[in-house]
Amino acid sequence: MEIYEQLTAQGDKVRSLKTAKADKADVDAAIQLLLKLKVDYKEVTGQDYKAGCPPSGTAVSNDRQSENGAEEDTVDPWNVATNSAKGVDYDKLIVRFGSSKIDQELVDRIEKVSGQKPHRFLRRGIFFSHRDMNQVLDAYEKQKSFYLYTGRGPSSQAMHVGHLIPFVFTKWLQDVFDIPLVIQLTDDEKYLWKDLSLEDCHRFAEENAKDIIACGFDVNKTFIFSDLDYMGSSPEFYRNVVKVQKHVTFNQVKGIFGFSDSDCIGKISFPAIQAAPAFSSSFPQIFKGRKDVQCLIPCAIDQDPYFRMTRDVAPRIGYPKPALLHSTFFPALQGAQTKMSASDANSSIFLTDTPKQIKNKVNKHAFSGGKDTIEEHREQGGNPDIDVAFMYLTFFMEDDEQLEKIRQDYTSGTLLTGELKKMLIETLQPMITAHQENRKNVTDEMVKQFMTPRPLNFNF
Amino acid sequence: MEIYEQLTAQGDKVRSLKTAKADKADVDAAIQLLLKLKVDYKEVTGQDYKAGCPPSGTAVSNDRQSENGAEEDTVDPWNVATNSAKGVDYDKLIVRFGSSKIDQELVDRIEKVSGQKPHRFLRRGIFFSHRDMNQVLDAYEKQKSFYLYTGRGPSSQAMHVGHLIPFVFTKWLQDVFDIPLVIQLTDDEKYLWKDLSLEDCHRFAEENAKDIIACGFDVNKTFIFSDLDYMGSSPEFYRNVVKVQKHVTFNQVKGIFGFSDSDCIGKISFPAIQAAPAFSSSFPQIFKGRKDVQCLIPCAIDQDPYFRMTRDVAPRIGYPKPALLHSTFFPALQGAQTKMSASDANSSIFLTDTPKQIKNKVNKHAFSGGKDTIEEHREQGGNPDIDVAFMYLTFFMEDDEQLEKIRQDYTSGTLLTGELKKMLIETLQPMITAHQENRKNVTDEMVKQFMTPRPLNFNF
Repeated sequence: MEIYEQLTAQGDKVRSLKTAKADKADVDAAIQLLLKLKVDYKEVTGQDYKAGCPPSGTAVSNDRQSENGAEEDTVDPWNVATNSAKGVDYDKLIVRFGSSKIDQELVDRIEKVSGQKPHRFLRRGIFFSHRDMNQVLDAYEKQKSFYLYTGRGPSSQAMHVGHLIPFVFTKWLQDVFDIPLVIQLTDDEKYLWKDLSLEDCHRFAEENAKDIIACGFDVNKTFIFSDLDYMGSSPEFYRNVVKVQKHVTFNQVKGIFGFSDSDCIGKISFPAIQAAPAFSSSFPQIFKGRKDVQCLIPCAIDQDPYFRMTRDVAPRIGYPKPALLHSTFFPALQGAQTKMSASDANSSIFLTDTPKQIKNKVNKHAFSGGKDTIEEHREQGGNPDIDVAFMYLTFFMEDDEQLEKIRQDYTSGTLLTGELKKMLIETLQPMITAHQENRKNVTDEMVKQFMTPRPLNFNF
Repeated sequence: MEIYEQLTAQGDKVRSLKTAKADKADVDAAIQLLLKLKVDYKEVTGQDYKAGCPPSGTAVSNDRQSENGAEEDTVDPWNVATNSAKGVDYDKLIVRFGSSKIDQELVDRIEKVSGQKPHRFLRRGIFFSHRDMNQVLDAYEKQKSFYLYTGRGPSSQAMHVGHLIPFVFTKWLQDVFDIPLVIQLTDDEKYLWKDLSLEDCHRFAEENAKDIIACGFDVNKTFIFSDLDYMGSSPEFYRNVVKVQKHVTFNQVKGIFGFSDSDCIGKISFPAIQAAPAFSSSFPQIFKGRKDVQCLIPCAIDQDPYFRMTRDVAPRIGYPKPALLHSTFFPALQGAQTKMSASDANSSIFLTDTPKQIKNKVNKHAFSGGKDTIEEHREQGGNPDIDVAFMYLTFFMEDDEQLEKIRQDYTSGTLLTGELKKMLIETLQPMITAHQENRKNVTDEMVKQFMTPRPLNFNF
């Protein structure tokens, strides 16, 4: 009942903020808190909140209701959930987060400015949303450079193919624009959120670095860092963390991230640590103390809350706002309702899987959009939009025409589920084997080189 | 009215916790929150909270009521206030904070173990409270060493004589026990709390370091550090900060420090940074990675909340609890109701004051316990307990017999206020001049030496 009253009050607040055309950041924060309260309410009562209907012991409902009465997906750095087999509704997310869609015009512009064919992730809408990408391109056309920042939370030694998406795309961006890249491994975050020791988190960071390096990054252009190490070796990085921490209140992180009073103070202040690498002065060894080099962050859309906060703080501490490129989520083998989980071996293809394991997992676990019998399938055709094997091929098959033919053949029923899965297996097996070969060649010495704060081959 | 209801609820909670003989830390946290609410209530209503009496527009009262209806002093790291001209009631504070009194037995024991006459601050009850000092002495008698940790918040370039108290005493402890000392300058804290730039806070830290070095510390036994610098040069320090941050919730710091939802996340997580130097593994260069060296912290009692929190966390992260020695506050020239303020030039004797300024300030501003006319004074005598000149002499006059004679003569009326003030002036002038001479000899090079992380002359 208490939560019910809080919810009603918060709903009123959101409406009055919207009516008053309040500052966007305030409205967003209020909505985030509203969503958080709704989740709490459902947990406690087992029912969805409905305005005007106090909790009862009988009503049962499974819908998550948005402000407008429509179903709404959950997307934040720790939870991604949707009821739709097609996955999260990304168009709605763009509206909710207030970002911009990557439309054909922007893809064409990236092609023009870079002089390269756009990456398949751009051609196929896998990177689908952005903030200020046009501004980055405007500046680049005027010979004003920028840098890339991406990262990973090293919660275990095991990375799956989905974890490669931001790195594969970031490598492409670095290659076509020829700019510096910093990669943050948030081992401190994983220690704060998980039941792991500091030593384990730090070890996972170094192991994950090997998989990242195996993507082919150039040591002369790339700096990879563990928070636990870099915080303790860069006074400039810590200074930027403190600056951000001074300009963000608990109320704000409560609204943005849903933190509560019983969360530890490490979690509460952590967002500043993910924000700081978006400012070039955090890396004086690379940018020679310059604080005005613009940052572009390719990441999955669930990380956007961190960077909404960062963009809000940036002008108040005298730094440019980072630009962003957002990707969709890589679906679990079981379907697009959730993100893959590194803790469930059968939910994904791991970078350590053997060809046989890949074959078995795809055949056994990949959710199919096909029909129950061959006869039915031939007659009615399959549904590629909910078929995980087809989704994976959109991520990893380079040839657009081949992919489109597969889509048509599957939809018409010419292509059977088993045949589609075989194509995926034959795409994944050589890709994973090549990754394993590359990783084998990554020595401890190379990891140390990548992770040493040092100048890169750029003049700033 | 809202605060009134919160207060009533919190009062009930404290009573029920006490009745249930709940964990001491929980009870303390609940009481701290209660006190905080009372202050808020008074601010909003202009009235003191009384159970059962909702706020009215008419009632006026100036008493701050404790749980038992008695007046209660305010003591936390940012506020010290009392209604008594004698200053804070330290015996009550010992009960409230749950520390132990430094009694004659402990003073005698320190004399016995150290083989030195106890410092006048111990003889005169200026260091009046402790935690686990007997445990430190037990271990020391068994050849188990410990280290000292004290600090300062560099909020301005100007330090006053009161700021020297912990350093003067710490130097004595270091001399008699021959142990390492670490001194934390919390420039990050001052940036978070005050309207100052990072650069100013860092500069104040270096300037304050000169005054501290002028107290005569041995560079081979002492490490002075600025948080802004040391956090960025010691991964081990940051690791301990994160460990503490994982084990303290917002609820806890709210209870202990009175933080609110509108405080910035930097303040909320800062207590971990003041906690970390209490663990020897934060200084691997000094303790060779040992994490079991016990820490003893001499500080003013207002810093105790930080270390109550530290002691609560220590066993949960595998470290020994730090021991503490608490001092009373150095009174302002205007009287013992408040701590001195570095921002009011007339509230204290600054380390930069000339002999003439010292004379004028004492004569003009030092609150007198004497009578209005010489005749009355001769007849009835003065009150040394509320006389600031006499209080200052208890801090700085070394000779016990001389001090006792002054007390008697002043009480009887033989000694006049002017004569008493003259004695203080003659004590302070050479002391401050000597400090200024010492400070002049502190070079930037020396500051750099003291502030460089390095091994000290001890074998661990």
